[in-house]
Amino acid sequence: MTLTATDQRGAPGPLPEGALRIVALGGIGEIGKNMTVFEYDGRLLIVDCGVLFPEDDSPGVDLILPDFRAIEDRIDDIEALVLTHGHEDHIGAVPFLLRLRPDLPVIGSRFTLALLAAKCKEHRQVPRLQEVKEGEHTRHGAFQCEFFAVNHSIPDALAVAIRTPAGTVLHTGDIKLDQLPLDGRLTDLAGFSRLGDEGVDLALVDSTNAEVPGFVPLERDIGPVLDGVIGKATQRVIVACFASHVHRVQQVLDVAVAHRRRVAFVGRSMVRNMGIAVDLGLIKVPEGLLIDLDEALQLPESKVLLVSTGSQGEPLSALSRMARGDHRQISIRAGDTVVLASSLIPGNETAVFGVVNGLVRLGAQIVHQANAKVHVSGHASAGELLYLYNALRPSNVMPVHGEWRHLRANAALAEATGVPASRTVIAEDGVVVDLIDGIVQIAGRVEIGHVYVDGLSVGDVGESTLSDRLVLGEGGFISITVAIDSATGRAVAPPTVSGRGFSDDPKALDEVVALVESELSRTEVEGITDPHRVAQAVRRVVGRWVAATYRRRPMIIPTVLPV
Amino acid sequence: MTLTATDQRGAPGPLPEGALRIVALGGIGEIGKNMTVFEYDGRLLIVDCGVLFPEDDSPGVDLILPDFRAIEDRIDDIEALVLTHGHEDHIGAVPFLLRLRPDLPVIGSRFTLALLAAKCKEHRQVPRLQEVKEGEHTRHGAFQCEFFAVNHSIPDALAVAIRTPAGTVLHTGDIKLDQLPLDGRLTDLAGFSRLGDEGVDLALVDSTNAEVPGFVPLERDIGPVLDGVIGKATQRVIVACFASHVHRVQQVLDVAVAHRRRVAFVGRSMVRNMGIAVDLGLIKVPEGLLIDLDEALQLPESKVLLVSTGSQGEPLSALSRMARGDHRQISIRAGDTVVLASSLIPGNETAVFGVVNGLVRLGAQIVHQANAKVHVSGHASAGELLYLYNALRPSNVMPVHGEWRHLRANAALAEATGVPASRTVIAEDGVVVDLIDGIVQIAGRVEIGHVYVDGLSVGDVGESTLSDRLVLGEGGFISITVAIDSATGRAVAPPTVSGRGFSDDPKALDEVVALVESELSRTEVEGITDPHRVAQAVRRVVGRWVAATYRRRPMIIPTVLPV
Repeated sequence: MTLTATDQRGAPGPLPEGALRIVALGGIGEIGKNMTVFEYDGRLLIVDCGVLFPEDDSPGVDLILPDFRAIEDRIDDIEALVLTHGHEDHIGAVPFLLRLRPDLPVIGSRFTLALLAAKCKEHRQVPRLQEVKEGEHTRHGAFQCEFFAVNHSIPDALAVAIRTPAGTVLHTGDIKLDQLPLDGRLTDLAGFSRLGDEGVDLALVDSTNAEVPGFVPLERDIGPVLDGVIGKATQRVIVACFASHVHRVQQVLDVAVAHRRRVAFVGRSMVRNMGIAVDLGLIKVPEGLLIDLDEALQLPESKVLLVSTGSQGEPLSALSRMARGDHRQISIRAGDTVVLASSLIPGNETAVFGVVNGLVRLGAQIVHQANAKVHVSGHASAGELLYLYNALRPSNVMPVHGEWRHLRANAALAEATGVPASRTVIAEDGVVVDLIDGIVQIAGRVEIGHVYVDGLSVGDVGESTLSDRLVLGEGGFISITVAIDSATGRAVAPPTVSGRGFSDDPKALDEVVALVESELSRTEVEGITDPHRVAQAVRRVVGRWVAATYRRRPMIIPTVLPV
Repeated sequence: MTLTATDQRGAPGPLPEGALRIVALGGIGEIGKNMTVFEYDGRLLIVDCGVLFPEDDSPGVDLILPDFRAIEDRIDDIEALVLTHGHEDHIGAVPFLLRLRPDLPVIGSRFTLALLAAKCKEHRQVPRLQEVKEGEHTRHGAFQCEFFAVNHSIPDALAVAIRTPAGTVLHTGDIKLDQLPLDGRLTDLAGFSRLGDEGVDLALVDSTNAEVPGFVPLERDIGPVLDGVIGKATQRVIVACFASHVHRVQQVLDVAVAHRRRVAFVGRSMVRNMGIAVDLGLIKVPEGLLIDLDEALQLPESKVLLVSTGSQGEPLSALSRMARGDHRQISIRAGDTVVLASSLIPGNETAVFGVVNGLVRLGAQIVHQANAKVHVSGHASAGELLYLYNALRPSNVMPVHGEWRHLRANAALAEATGVPASRTVIAEDGVVVDLIDGIVQIAGRVEIGHVYVDGLSVGDVGESTLSDRLVLGEGGFISITVAIDSATGRAVAPPTVSGRGFSDDPKALDEVVALVESELSRTEVEGITDPHRVAQAVRRVVGRWVAATYRRRPMIIPTVLPV
């Protein structure tokens, strides 16, 4: 049966000599914050260092980082950080790792490093970058890396083979196998086959679409669909997609040219990334096609196409503002066309459909993946993963990048191609996997928590703060402030009672004052002068009252001031 | 062009003599809290009175009700309430309407009224019920009703034709056109055709699946899929579905019989609804098939099938507890089978996939609509709606039950069958539509708010409380309590500063005490003794500090006690 370690809690023993250790600090059991640590002979190599975008259970949090505790004490043992591609869930946490080790060598492709450099600039960091291309080899201590071209929803993505005396590991990064990619840069299945001939001891493989049968359609099939939609449009056209999806944007630009529309980019990250893509020659833009938004607004609507961020319903994005009718410059009207040429990331449905409904209400025609083929995924479906396993013929497999449902499906695919179930290992974040004599085994588990970024500060918002936020967000609070004579415990003034997030009714808490006064009489009679005990008594009596009267659970906050 | 009233804000004028007025108090522009008010000659007829389940923007709220204000002053003008079927979004708010008018006649089919009676019992109400069947006619003042059988995801659903001197209106309720329904009770397309021959002045039509091309597959096609899954299972099998989906449960029971498994119902609403369905003969249960959960747990796992609630990831449901591994009686283990024979309601994805991942992690095999045909929708797809329009041939059409994207798609279907665009009207909640001389027109708009139920209380939680909850939920609060001498404004003790939901770091607010003390010295020197003004000064200085130091926005709550 597939190796899993759902109950394993113990710390791992020391790594046997000649063995390779693998620990994911993020990305297994979740989609996001990908980070894998490889250890050989006391030295470390890290692949990717991304962020996770928070969901409802982490209110107020901006980002979630991988938990660096497992490597914090060994920060100088790290030989290098290898980045597979430039998406946020693979590079977003790099600045936070560089705070611990500013001179860490960071290895990646040209576009990946350009995006990272832009990010580091915002953090006022100058990272130590080493650019690599597919086909190249690098050496970082005992770790020898070889890079392979892979196709994904961002240009210039790489898989990395890591050779150590313990064996050869292939980490796919995010991958799909588009057989007619727009830039002609195929996933290097031939290279994987050669590596397979040599012998792959362990493959870490993208699981995101392992549940999806068949094959991802070609990216280039989207072009004609966009052409049909945009060719028919007679008014304003807005296309929203991910700001890093250069090939998607290329197809939009080609359609704009064909229909004599000039193009303006909308949204900070779109403008920035497309600037980088143009500089690096990753996108072909005919002279004079691009204009800025102010210029675009001067032209007839039928002569312009806007390429915008906001495809995930982000509330502050330009597209969301247009949908609410409060964009400063752009008013949507009946007959406009909006294309969402993007995925719908699970968890964003309410936000995205909110934007769609807002735009539809204003009369726009909305084209999205549910009613036209304007998006294809960047991750290999089951059929492609079979090609991958049959090329690599790995001895051991460790599914990565996925929730449990994706990981199990990926393990099953590996097993279907002949990898023994006992050699597939689902190692959720923190599970320590050792490759010893060519066989994977689970060696233990290191503690992995969530590290939250909220505003300027990292790590001070933790589970206790989040749990308070959840309680406050559900029920608000009732605060009761009393000043007592520190000698007698007698209340020196009537209690001050107020609530926020509890009720709109100004009389909702009228009874509480009398209730608290009566409780204070009791504590005084009992000779209780300790402010903490008085506060406890107040909390208890108010909590009971509110549960019985309203069946609600606000936070009850007594403050007792001895004066 | 389709009539819409997105900007119309004015109150409607008086209803012309001989005209019919239609106002939706809920259900248009949203999925849920369906309620439509018809007015003729000063008298009202209401169709449905349901609830909406809250989303993230209404934290802590249990239910959202239609806004009754538009009819509150005219509560005695209501002739009757007609219920199309027994789903919560059609009957859930009835007890709240009955509080205003306990003797209101409530008309509905047998199963609908049985579910309503059970609900009213929990509210200690005894409603005045009038049972009807398809084919029957009733009269309520000037409103003559005729009822038609319709097929949906609950038995005994009805459409209602309302005849008044102003014309004939058909309200479909929720509807699909399964041509081989399990109970043989077809949507009465023949009746609709007859009504069409007679002349339908206005059709209000379910929009939920208007965007979905083609036809909903047959409910009965699910049986063989369930048989394949359950027939292969050798361990525990749990099937989760909606508690009111009697035909789905019937198919599960049939499969259980075929594979010699006995059945226990799990979940309060499942047990209650199936009890009613058995009593009314709507479900066929062989003698001895049903056992209770305690009994089921005594039998070998291969001899039992559990039918459970929790298909939407409800955190307190038995299924969620099993997924977290903290169900008191049932531990999921590798090889168990869980079938989610249900839809995935938009907005519930995170919760549902959380449950799926939890179960997969424990080793269960999960069968759901994405990997097997174990669910079909209860709402007509576009192809079926075309049949409906071609049978009814309505002069005017008003799409209901949907968000804007669904409503627009439904209007387009009506128009494709020949209804002039100027006779289709998208009247979101509160828009007043008059049918005058056989032509719809928009007469104005009544104000429609959200009415929230939180715990025992209705309506006291409003926008201000929710906005406070959102702020508290995102950033927590910092409270500062100071006692000042009421004569001089001098602080009589150091300020008490505390935060909840702000930081896990006990020193996070250390600087605030000194900051507030310095501000209090300033206000004292300036001779400020008014507690309100002192509080304002404290709020300002702490708010600025926290924004600059943390870039966060907790609620700042100063309390100034004059002593």
